[in-house]
Amino acid sequence: MDITSVIRTIPDYPKKGIMFRDITTLLGHAQAFRRAVDELVQPYAGIRIDKVAGIEARGFIVGGAVAHQLSTSFVPVRKKGKLPWKTYEQAYELEYGTDHVEMHQDAISEGDQVVVVDDLIATGGTAEAAIKLIEHAGGTVIGCSFVIDLPDLGGAQKLKDAGKIVRTLCEFEGE
Amino acid sequence: MDITSVIRTIPDYPKKGIMFRDITTLLGHAQAFRRAVDELVQPYAGIRIDKVAGIEARGFIVGGAVAHQLSTSFVPVRKKGKLPWKTYEQAYELEYGTDHVEMHQDAISEGDQVVVVDDLIATGGTAEAAIKLIEHAGGTVIGCSFVIDLPDLGGAQKLKDAGKIVRTLCEFEGE
Repeated sequence: MDITSVIRTIPDYPKKGIMFRDITTLLGHAQAFRRAVDELVQPYAGIRIDKVAGIEARGFIVGGAVAHQLSTSFVPVRKKGKLPWKTYEQAYELEYGTDHVEMHQDAISEGDQVVVVDDLIATGGTAEAAIKLIEHAGGTVIGCSFVIDLPDLGGAQKLKDAGKIVRTLCEFEGE
Repeated sequence: MDITSVIRTIPDYPKKGIMFRDITTLLGHAQAFRRAVDELVQPYAGIRIDKVAGIEARGFIVGGAVAHQLSTSFVPVRKKGKLPWKTYEQAYELEYGTDHVEMHQDAISEGDQVVVVDDLIATGGTAEAAIKLIEHAGGTVIGCSFVIDLPDLGGAQKLKDAGKIVRTLCEFEGE
């Protein structure tokens, strides 16, 4: 099972010049989805993981399955204004301007060992913001798992340089 | 483990008079999350399930875990304009006006047996829209699983009357 072969590429989405990497075709293949989850958790064998933090929205699907596989709880990291209770908020840079993610203030307890999950890592801005939220709340991010890496954009390398385990299952060029 | 006890109620969210039932406290409790997933899939023991369809966004978290538990693939049912490829679209009624959900046209194959998953059922509008999308694409919805039921709003009963298995784990009054 080659994970790359079950990722669909959609040219010019969401705008001209962007090659969008669509994981719905992977999710739609039961064997590939299960294999992907197995591979995403593989580096954490033998390490105590308390929580899986999934980044909205595709990171919820993959992260929900990863949390189930690891028998941990799940922490949603959401776009601003979507969580109903008290939150911590963290800005991150976009190509033009900034955006924000939020996490509930009681989502992480002091000493929690956490894995961050999303479908894709590009520049790593969202993942870094999620890490800041978790570590601000007293947790430690042990590692980050993504289905797809866009290595030209350098996000995975930045997380490795920050001492995190980084697990990715396939690579594509450019954006 | 009483599921009701790990649901947080937030008064006056998202607007005055609404008692919001927050599942993040359930997701944040590893044992409760795992137990909830076990109970959500329980009615499908011995039935062939091909796909789990999760409704954006909280249904992605629970549905991702349910799909993993059942070793099936996962179909995202998303708000309009969020899916990158060709979609089917279905309107549903809100208190004031209408909204739409979408599903990729290749997400369901003829004869697929599907379970729909979301965090909560109220009037059932979104779940019914998801069922129409799946059945339009040639699938059969065997059942629907929700963590929370608001029975006063009648959605679960409507789905049962339509011949679906309906699984809910706890009930709250009113909206």
